[in-house]
Amino acid sequence: MSTAANSRVYTAGLVVIGDEILSGRTHDKNIAQVATWLQVQGIRLDEVRVVADVEERIVEAVNSLRERNDYLFTTGGIGPTHDDITVDAVASALGVSVIVHPDARAILERYYADKGGINDARLRMARVPDGAELIPNRMSGAPGIRLGNIFLMAGVPHITAGMLDALTGTLEGGAPLLSETIGCWVAESEVADLLRETEKAHDGCQIGSYPFFREGKVGANFVIRSTDAAAITSCVDTLCEGLGARGRDFTPGGI
Amino acid sequence: MSTAANSRVYTAGLVVIGDEILSGRTHDKNIAQVATWLQVQGIRLDEVRVVADVEERIVEAVNSLRERNDYLFTTGGIGPTHDDITVDAVASALGVSVIVHPDARAILERYYADKGGINDARLRMARVPDGAELIPNRMSGAPGIRLGNIFLMAGVPHITAGMLDALTGTLEGGAPLLSETIGCWVAESEVADLLRETEKAHDGCQIGSYPFFREGKVGANFVIRSTDAAAITSCVDTLCEGLGARGRDFTPGGI
Repeated sequence: MSTAANSRVYTAGLVVIGDEILSGRTHDKNIAQVATWLQVQGIRLDEVRVVADVEERIVEAVNSLRERNDYLFTTGGIGPTHDDITVDAVASALGVSVIVHPDARAILERYYADKGGINDARLRMARVPDGAELIPNRMSGAPGIRLGNIFLMAGVPHITAGMLDALTGTLEGGAPLLSETIGCWVAESEVADLLRETEKAHDGCQIGSYPFFREGKVGANFVIRSTDAAAITSCVDTLCEGLGARGRDFTPGGI
Repeated sequence: MSTAANSRVYTAGLVVIGDEILSGRTHDKNIAQVATWLQVQGIRLDEVRVVADVEERIVEAVNSLRERNDYLFTTGGIGPTHDDITVDAVASALGVSVIVHPDARAILERYYADKGGINDARLRMARVPDGAELIPNRMSGAPGIRLGNIFLMAGVPHITAGMLDALTGTLEGGAPLLSETIGCWVAESEVADLLRETEKAHDGCQIGSYPFFREGKVGANFVIRSTDAAAITSCVDTLCEGLGARGRDFTPGGI
């Protein structure tokens, strides 16, 4: 990949589909999982929307996020039951028809050969927006779906993990966002000016401040992010000097 | 509350604000927490958006979700540091100015009296959109903020929990969405037609199917939701009869 390509920022949107997340029944694990995986690919997660199993809501979220990002991921709603409508919604968003993918059908026929055989519900999982390719699923047969820069993944986190694994290294990304963490037993409100000034003095660096309460004391982790390793080092040095000048011990790597 | 009011569906939107969620560094716990709490208030969580610490992105999400819902909640970005910009963004979305709330200032002065006293960063946490009231925070002084049907909560989940607790019972909601769960050691793809037909035959009931893999076997929990307890009972009966007719044992309450 050329340096020019590396300096471009690639972004992705994520649509999490499922009433079970909005009802609080299921605690989503896919946001963190997709976010972490994207970082390693050099792609920044720009926005997440969690929407119900309602076609027009999925269509709206998909269209809105795919227009403004390089990549779009969805999780959930690609199973065999009546509430699994992601394929139909994405096809509708793209204005393409839904077809049965012959390879997906073959995969499912093999997978269910000793599990009662294929039926209408299972065949639903071979339906894809016209023009799509499959993303392998080594866990449970039913594949993920790729259509250009759109990726439809499972709702069950460990199945999504396998699909992401299959995609690792295949997406064009920029320089990965690097980060370094400095932990400090200090109330963030005591060093807010130091954080702001340090960030301002280091172009392309971003400092996040994440307070915590532990062992009866307040502390914070400061996360310095940039695509430029040298810039991070310089920013970390300035921050640590500043903390030291205020009589504060700090812990590289975070607390 | 009158029966007429109860039959109306109340909805809420949630905007989760924070680079740390989008980077995967922090696993969000507020979506599930707010969703569960809303259910008990008789309010349905309609959509969640996770956006970065960038004013125009917060403004866009806030305006979009507040227009289509009865209530809007935000989590994150109300602390003392430079990346805490929720108050400014919400004020901008509403077209009001930001003021220092005298009660918030008094609370913070008391809270920090024996912790080094008030300073500019800490005073940031007394800033509110003009017209706002405070939501008590028994954990760490800095209050949450209520402006009509908009609620700005902390990013740290246990602080948000306390703020939600302070709001419990104060928001007008409809009849709470009830649910009953039936677990079954069956591949959901074997009973997809039963689920679809049962849902269709019971107006106002919704059946979610949540598959799992445990002890080397596939199973699923079927969650029947409705605001009408009698409708749920009838729907559950039909579903259990159907599972029984297919020679399947089922577990009321779920597996």
